[in-house]
Amino acid sequence: MKNAFYAQSGGVTAVINASACGVIETARKHRDKIGKVYAGRHGVLGALTEDMIDTSKESRAAISALRHTPGGAFGSARYKLAGIDKDRAQYARLIDIFRAHDIGYFFYNGGNDSMDTAQKVSEIAVQMAYPIACVGIPKTVDNDLPITDCCPGFGSAAKYIAVSTREAGLDVASMARTSTKVFVLEVMGRHAGWMAAAGGLAGDKAGDAPHIILFPEISFDRERFLAKVKLSVEKYGYCVVVVSEGVRGSDGKFLAEAGTKDAFGHSQLGGVGPVVAQMTQQAFGYKFHWAVADYLQRSARHIASKVDVDQAYAVGKAAVELALKGRNAVMPVIVRKSAKPYRWSIGEAPLSEVANKEKKLPRNFITADSFGITAACRNYLAPLIAGEDYPPYRNGLPTYVTLKGVSVVKRLRTPFVI
Amino acid sequence: MKNAFYAQSGGVTAVINASACGVIETARKHRDKIGKVYAGRHGVLGALTEDMIDTSKESRAAISALRHTPGGAFGSARYKLAGIDKDRAQYARLIDIFRAHDIGYFFYNGGNDSMDTAQKVSEIAVQMAYPIACVGIPKTVDNDLPITDCCPGFGSAAKYIAVSTREAGLDVASMARTSTKVFVLEVMGRHAGWMAAAGGLAGDKAGDAPHIILFPEISFDRERFLAKVKLSVEKYGYCVVVVSEGVRGSDGKFLAEAGTKDAFGHSQLGGVGPVVAQMTQQAFGYKFHWAVADYLQRSARHIASKVDVDQAYAVGKAAVELALKGRNAVMPVIVRKSAKPYRWSIGEAPLSEVANKEKKLPRNFITADSFGITAACRNYLAPLIAGEDYPPYRNGLPTYVTLKGVSVVKRLRTPFVI
Repeated sequence: MKNAFYAQSGGVTAVINASACGVIETARKHRDKIGKVYAGRHGVLGALTEDMIDTSKESRAAISALRHTPGGAFGSARYKLAGIDKDRAQYARLIDIFRAHDIGYFFYNGGNDSMDTAQKVSEIAVQMAYPIACVGIPKTVDNDLPITDCCPGFGSAAKYIAVSTREAGLDVASMARTSTKVFVLEVMGRHAGWMAAAGGLAGDKAGDAPHIILFPEISFDRERFLAKVKLSVEKYGYCVVVVSEGVRGSDGKFLAEAGTKDAFGHSQLGGVGPVVAQMTQQAFGYKFHWAVADYLQRSARHIASKVDVDQAYAVGKAAVELALKGRNAVMPVIVRKSAKPYRWSIGEAPLSEVANKEKKLPRNFITADSFGITAACRNYLAPLIAGEDYPPYRNGLPTYVTLKGVSVVKRLRTPFVI
Repeated sequence: MKNAFYAQSGGVTAVINASACGVIETARKHRDKIGKVYAGRHGVLGALTEDMIDTSKESRAAISALRHTPGGAFGSARYKLAGIDKDRAQYARLIDIFRAHDIGYFFYNGGNDSMDTAQKVSEIAVQMAYPIACVGIPKTVDNDLPITDCCPGFGSAAKYIAVSTREAGLDVASMARTSTKVFVLEVMGRHAGWMAAAGGLAGDKAGDAPHIILFPEISFDRERFLAKVKLSVEKYGYCVVVVSEGVRGSDGKFLAEAGTKDAFGHSQLGGVGPVVAQMTQQAFGYKFHWAVADYLQRSARHIASKVDVDQAYAVGKAAVELALKGRNAVMPVIVRKSAKPYRWSIGEAPLSEVANKEKKLPRNFITADSFGITAACRNYLAPLIAGEDYPPYRNGLPTYVTLKGVSVVKRLRTPFVI
């Protein structure tokens, strides 16, 4: 019987804790094989610094509540381990920690970078002859992991964006006659337009918001954009734009860095939302409004997709089951078995095929004029936002759990400086 | 038997259509006294231009669905009628329209300005000896109308802000160790800090987000703000700030206009969120993120407060009942009968006492250090966000109604130029 280590990595989501819940609840069902689940405080840093939370001290109710709690309950980290050759000491340290705490399972919950780390940990363990099952657990609002049909975290962000676009669209439509004519919603997705595409689900028929989507995959063309805005305002009275933070001009530069300076001459950070909104005013005098959803879109557990929550839990559960089956250096993936009706199952992929690869929006998911999503894209996206999974409320607010977070007693005498 | 005219005015909310629903459903119950309800297309402009929607052509189901549909289903307008002396022609035109369509009830759903308009319409009707009952219906996310305990629309925006602050706070808390330390959420409220205050509901105990609220009622003090951010980051690891768009410096200028220029030398519009976020980076090097909720906060019907929806419906219903009782130049108000347990009823106020007056956040609702809300404020706000009232969903998205919008046949031969 071995203990397990679990860590959250990279940007958190509305459902990454649902994966943690899947891991811990499943591990608890196999007490003959898995002792305790230790969670890294702030991701892999928690392992390197021997700063771990003993999840066995958490009540069943608290672990269960992770399923409906957004953010990263154990703390996440943006910390990428260097190559094994470059920084062997860090990897050796991990193995020291695993050995000291009798850890035989390594569950790493993250995106592309994190799958690379998990892969490297499995390699070093082999090199150092330390037996451990390394299993990645997919997570990213960006939906850019390869092989898996979708990434847990994305469906809920997508639902938030689609719902918000629909709601704000109704607002602008009512105001447009005498006031705001252009509304811009800026969404995440620096390299891949999955989240921007999700805005397209808001519209059911011609004329519905959004009228324009700006994808990071498509080079921004100011004249074509302005012409489309004008057309939309003239035809429908208003124009709703969903823009990805990652949109670039033909010079390859982010629009968000388009030379805006603050009073001190510092380059003004983001967002692309106000930049494109202001363009329409300069060109046509349209009154505009803009919103930047930022963290709200990836933490909005109150409007999570039920499919997404179920899948996030399922990949956590599957990770434990794969490890118990002796699998190593793999990641559970979502397999789409049927689109209508939507049916999915859990498969697996080697970490080496997932690590550091990015899945962009296919061109055939973007309309010919580049400003919208195709039927193929809609068919892909629609099931991922299906179903509601409301958290419990008290006094008008969702009740999210805060764990006790009891620290595991340290066993190594040497501190480790990050 | 007379017909009724109903119009929506100013910025729309998540529940203004619930008031419309209350008006129309109640009118339909009194067919002996109220013939048809005509709704102005784009507010009072619809009356001036004889552009009205015949709500009797809408099905019972469609009218009922207004209760869960955000935005302004008939179109709203930012259009303030000038003084009677200044533009008598506009008022005379309204009376012409009312007479031509046998309208005996004028229901005007809006904020401070709109109550002023409703008051003036009632005056001109007396002067022109045209019998009509003018009843205002309160609506504003700003919550700044006097006399009424709160304004329909505010509770849902407040709930959105409180929920979003809680969710984003959990996100930042998980990231802070290696990434974002400061998160800023910009909310509406140009003159009154009610919406900013609502962010304060997100925290239950010391250390919970938000750590700082910046109110428009308090002159911004850069040094004190930065000191508080630093303290929060050092004590809790991160800092969540809720800032009102209306915050001003000691020079009386909006911070959002703090001299930022774009590449063309144009003054960069808003928001104050990025401005204060960037300050913390310049002072301490903290990584920051910011969100601007903008229209999302006032259209978020998916997370509406049940109390707010009920009150919005109730003031619509009460407006019709007051008119039927022969009341004129009044507005139904929300009366708080008890705080714990929260109980409310509907009262009434003369339009003259409501028009053009603004209720700011009382100083005793803001903590002594000016960065938080007091227990008195919390006691006031908490009941207003209570209860959930989810809209129906189809395919993962809320189903909001679009009305048929059949136009009333014009009876006047003269067009009217706005």
